[in-house]
Amino acid sequence: MSLLVVGSLALDTIETPFGKVDDALGGSATYISTASSYFASPVNLVGVVGGDFPKSGIDFLQSRNIGTDGIETVADGKTFRWGGRYHYDLNVRDTLFTDLNVFKEFDPKIPAAYTTSKYVCLGNIDPVLQRRVLEQIERPKLVVGDTMNFWIEGKRDELLKTIALLDVLIINDSEARLLAGEANLFRAAKKILALGVNILIIKKGEHGALLITGSTVFSAPAYPLENIFDPTGAGDTFAGGFIGYLAKTDDISVENLKKAVIYGSTMASFCVEQFSLDALRDLTYLRIQDRYREFRALSNFEE
Amino acid sequence: MSLLVVGSLALDTIETPFGKVDDALGGSATYISTASSYFASPVNLVGVVGGDFPKSGIDFLQSRNIGTDGIETVADGKTFRWGGRYHYDLNVRDTLFTDLNVFKEFDPKIPAAYTTSKYVCLGNIDPVLQRRVLEQIERPKLVVGDTMNFWIEGKRDELLKTIALLDVLIINDSEARLLAGEANLFRAAKKILALGVNILIIKKGEHGALLITGSTVFSAPAYPLENIFDPTGAGDTFAGGFIGYLAKTDDISVENLKKAVIYGSTMASFCVEQFSLDALRDLTYLRIQDRYREFRALSNFEE
Repeated sequence: MSLLVVGSLALDTIETPFGKVDDALGGSATYISTASSYFASPVNLVGVVGGDFPKSGIDFLQSRNIGTDGIETVADGKTFRWGGRYHYDLNVRDTLFTDLNVFKEFDPKIPAAYTTSKYVCLGNIDPVLQRRVLEQIERPKLVVGDTMNFWIEGKRDELLKTIALLDVLIINDSEARLLAGEANLFRAAKKILALGVNILIIKKGEHGALLITGSTVFSAPAYPLENIFDPTGAGDTFAGGFIGYLAKTDDISVENLKKAVIYGSTMASFCVEQFSLDALRDLTYLRIQDRYREFRALSNFEE
Repeated sequence: MSLLVVGSLALDTIETPFGKVDDALGGSATYISTASSYFASPVNLVGVVGGDFPKSGIDFLQSRNIGTDGIETVADGKTFRWGGRYHYDLNVRDTLFTDLNVFKEFDPKIPAAYTTSKYVCLGNIDPVLQRRVLEQIERPKLVVGDTMNFWIEGKRDELLKTIALLDVLIINDSEARLLAGEANLFRAAKKILALGVNILIIKKGEHGALLITGSTVFSAPAYPLENIFDPTGAGDTFAGGFIGYLAKTDDISVENLKKAVIYGSTMASFCVEQFSLDALRDLTYLRIQDRYREFRALSNFEE
């Protein structure tokens, strides 16, 4: 089924104890669409870049069969740039700079051909813009949205209006606690579902992820990685694997949602094994399935 | 199969945001033996108490069919007392006092009838004493040991000698990182296995538990508890459910170890729902099995 991804395209400068990259291809929409391209087809991307965005970036997306007609280029503007430095404990990150550039004036315009997309993934952008995307889509089957502390704290009312329109909200554990004003994660989840979203996914980094609906709790483990090179994009890659698998199978039953969470976790586990987007450049579906099976061995047990 | 539990008996003073208890029955051996008594038989306890230890405490243990012949009473001494206060975020705890009293001079003497125990659980005591217990046991089938930061930092060399004699080491995630000097939990686990223990269990509180051997990683979820009243004893209760199930089934295959981890998690999830040991006073095996099945729904997914 058709999948539309809306979010940022960026050039990232990333420092970790293991190395550094400058102006690497990044941004939420880039990670989401690349991860989902291993499952769904067509995947179409809507975002904005500056005149300085490298042709190699567009070429790469197209090589993954991602539709790029919705990428607006502001010829005399600069692409969104983000810089971050990870500490030896990779859970700790300093943001070095956030230059929004053309992303500051982003006003998503959905090409006519994408307005009938059945699956929609809204990357972490202003909740007002997330709603503006939904206003342009005709009856999607499933809408997944991401957000972050910045919007929870700074645009709470707008965010609540957007959340009520989502089918699936994907956030991390600290964001869930902040959004609900509640330390206990399961009580927080109940409060968030009461905001009008049907399905909540809470990402817990090295502790895996939770899928929570009104009637189900599913706990996905984290893949036992001994070497994490760069956590950048792991959350977006998770979202891409998750919605990509759902769009591929066109099945949003609870049992299939569980599988989609594991495919999301699988893709995220690959992502962090290399710098930037590198690990998502040449995966194969066979390797993805092998790791999915490893997740089963990791978490299933007998009656 | 016969199970021997060696550790502390204590009287706990516990404050949480939800209430307070004074001189409640506590101690690692109390929690371990009580939890294991729902599975294994006979369970025998070795520990020490003062003349002030209430008869109701002994009566309770005996009501659970726990052998109390190994509980030494120092008539003119006082029982080990511990006081702790939990914050609203129950992960944060202040120790109010630790009065070792008779526990300070504890020198475990294993009654002759217990020296042929096939399963042995060493609660969190001085690693020198843990070895002294093992010297008195004839060929146990499985020895499980617990420890804590205090011994990792203060008696490292003695602890390493003890760890090399264990089949299973159960510690929490911060202890694992401290013991291995390694932030990544899976690299830490590899280093700990290299110390000579075959099976490592890492407890992660609200994030579940990991079972790690030379060839297997198994990730157990945490039960989705919305109300945690008192975390005291959860780790010991986990250990009791784990070894109790192994002693009951007398099967230490990897598949059965996974099940034992879930039974340990099940018992711990009951423990924290009430104050002190209260939730372990009147469980039924049916309720335990129901919750075990809930754990399956929580973590299993389709191929």
